[in-house]
Amino acid sequence: MNTEKKHNLEITKAKESKIDSVDFNNLSFGRSFTDHMFSCDFKDGKWQVGKVIPYSPLTLDPSARVFHYGQAVFEGMKAFKDQDNQVWLFRPEDNFNRINISAARLAMPEFPKEVFFEGLTELLKLDDAWIKNTKGSAMYIRPFVIATEPAISASPASEYKFMIIMSPAQAYYAGEVRVLIATEYSRATDGGVGFAKAAGNYAAQFYPTSLAHKEGYQQIIWTDSSAHEFLEEAGTMNIFFRINDTLITAPTSDRILDGITRKSVIQLAKDNNIDVEIRPIKVEEINDAAQNGSLKEIFGSGTAAVINPILGFKHKEFKHELPKQDAPYSAFFKEKLNAIQYNLAEDPHGWRYKI
Amino acid sequence: MNTEKKHNLEITKAKESKIDSVDFNNLSFGRSFTDHMFSCDFKDGKWQVGKVIPYSPLTLDPSARVFHYGQAVFEGMKAFKDQDNQVWLFRPEDNFNRINISAARLAMPEFPKEVFFEGLTELLKLDDAWIKNTKGSAMYIRPFVIATEPAISASPASEYKFMIIMSPAQAYYAGEVRVLIATEYSRATDGGVGFAKAAGNYAAQFYPTSLAHKEGYQQIIWTDSSAHEFLEEAGTMNIFFRINDTLITAPTSDRILDGITRKSVIQLAKDNNIDVEIRPIKVEEINDAAQNGSLKEIFGSGTAAVINPILGFKHKEFKHELPKQDAPYSAFFKEKLNAIQYNLAEDPHGWRYKI
Repeated sequence: MNTEKKHNLEITKAKESKIDSVDFNNLSFGRSFTDHMFSCDFKDGKWQVGKVIPYSPLTLDPSARVFHYGQAVFEGMKAFKDQDNQVWLFRPEDNFNRINISAARLAMPEFPKEVFFEGLTELLKLDDAWIKNTKGSAMYIRPFVIATEPAISASPASEYKFMIIMSPAQAYYAGEVRVLIATEYSRATDGGVGFAKAAGNYAAQFYPTSLAHKEGYQQIIWTDSSAHEFLEEAGTMNIFFRINDTLITAPTSDRILDGITRKSVIQLAKDNNIDVEIRPIKVEEINDAAQNGSLKEIFGSGTAAVINPILGFKHKEFKHELPKQDAPYSAFFKEKLNAIQYNLAEDPHGWRYKI
Repeated sequence: MNTEKKHNLEITKAKESKIDSVDFNNLSFGRSFTDHMFSCDFKDGKWQVGKVIPYSPLTLDPSARVFHYGQAVFEGMKAFKDQDNQVWLFRPEDNFNRINISAARLAMPEFPKEVFFEGLTELLKLDDAWIKNTKGSAMYIRPFVIATEPAISASPASEYKFMIIMSPAQAYYAGEVRVLIATEYSRATDGGVGFAKAAGNYAAQFYPTSLAHKEGYQQIIWTDSSAHEFLEEAGTMNIFFRINDTLITAPTSDRILDGITRKSVIQLAKDNNIDVEIRPIKVEEINDAAQNGSLKEIFGSGTAAVINPILGFKHKEFKHELPKQDAPYSAFFKEKLNAIQYNLAEDPHGWRYKI
């Protein structure tokens, strides 16, 4: 294989592409990966040269700390191709900043911005053919950092790997989503790591979510761990409530992820004269609004689904189906966001990033 | 390599031992591993044949779920060699049960008991030369389970690896340990995964612990996440307080690990007519006891250190050095436990397990 040097990068191209083995009309989320990946090692106290290399398995000692102590963080981002085949990212600096915020909370070293953007750009250029410009298609991008040092003492590692892998994605349809409001299990707590995209936050939700599935609910809206009185987030999505014509979402905190789609929705609401309140939301308030008919919509926001309308919820013994809206906010925000992402609309806030 | 079949196991011996490369008088905890390891894959809905194989790196797809969602649990156990070169485990059924309890909380499949004990026994026999019968020497055993399925959707994996690796250990000396009592950061919460040996619980403690280090404190005693009023555990140790001649430790809960050394200390206290109270402990009570002189000792209990005396603590602005005891409980329990572990004393509760 030929290795090329470019600024802060070493680039080794795959001998052949596996793109023909992928059915782009039947993609299962996060199961197919492109021909290349980005990899950069931290050792001897610093990040080494970043490498764009053929997508390939990792070889790690069984004592690598990521296997034992969950020292791992990640991000989720998307690249979009417009009708002129130009590729765009959406607010990638926010993802970059957040992975370093997550890393700091897990005592992991900060990654340099320049190397991240050079690596990601090179990766998107090499695997450009994997990004389709058909409606709803996107490239899901997964940066992640793992502790690789081979030693099982319970302390921060001295060696890490920063990686970026990419998976082509179709328009995301999560199916019909109804949610259970948490009354027993918890996702996060004050002084914990709930605000970080820390690997362990996700595994901790799998079992309670599997119990919700058995009752017919696809996701959980997590509540405060002290009294389960306040609505927080859904683990892979932030949550918005529409009461009459006002949009309400919980404030970010050390328990709640500072979602990039969340803050884009808030900005778009302001731009479009939709009242938006960022404040603690009592479960009781939502139950009351459901009963008196003022609760019009609930939807989630996140990178994978962009906006995910929620059809109904259950809290303790109270079950509620949301009414159908003629012009739902969820569809409005999804369309507005997609239009910016696919370069079909003006971008007044400079959210698009050209590759 | 020759592969031998034995009951539920396939055994492949290492061609040569690396034991001569290890300095047994200068072991750093968890950095040297023996010649063999146990590995068993879960796929197609069941655990496959367990394998004892040469210690070697793992090859995993970068999309393996353990890297992204922290779906990983572990155990810590020790094997001891007596003066007749007989090898013993200490309460291994409790470790086995607990790894399945941890796994269940992270939506991971239960591992079969028979395969665990056969695999571990075979491993200890093959690597017997690595277990020294010198005072304080032991074999640290690390069973762990990781999600290996190559797909980054945020849901429980369908493929796992159950592994056991082993690292020779000398008498563990943690150095002088002073602790900071948590007032801001949190380790666990009601309804969370604090009781489980879930990988993510450990990474979450690294950053707050690094802040404690800067102030001269080696560990943190975690408190309840709601108000930081009650003392819980130290993350790698349960905590005991001796007020006058009474031993006090917090009850286990979904926030606190059900430590095997912890419950052994409680039993030994009862056996030796030491009053022991298992109840919530207010920070305020310990501060008051420190000030009026009734707080005699604080110590941690865990597999690695067995019993770890704590020399002092800090809570907010209150700093306290513990008084020296002529006959500390910490030394008493450590000696009692070691005597049972190394087959130097009767074993009335059947804690030893012969290999």
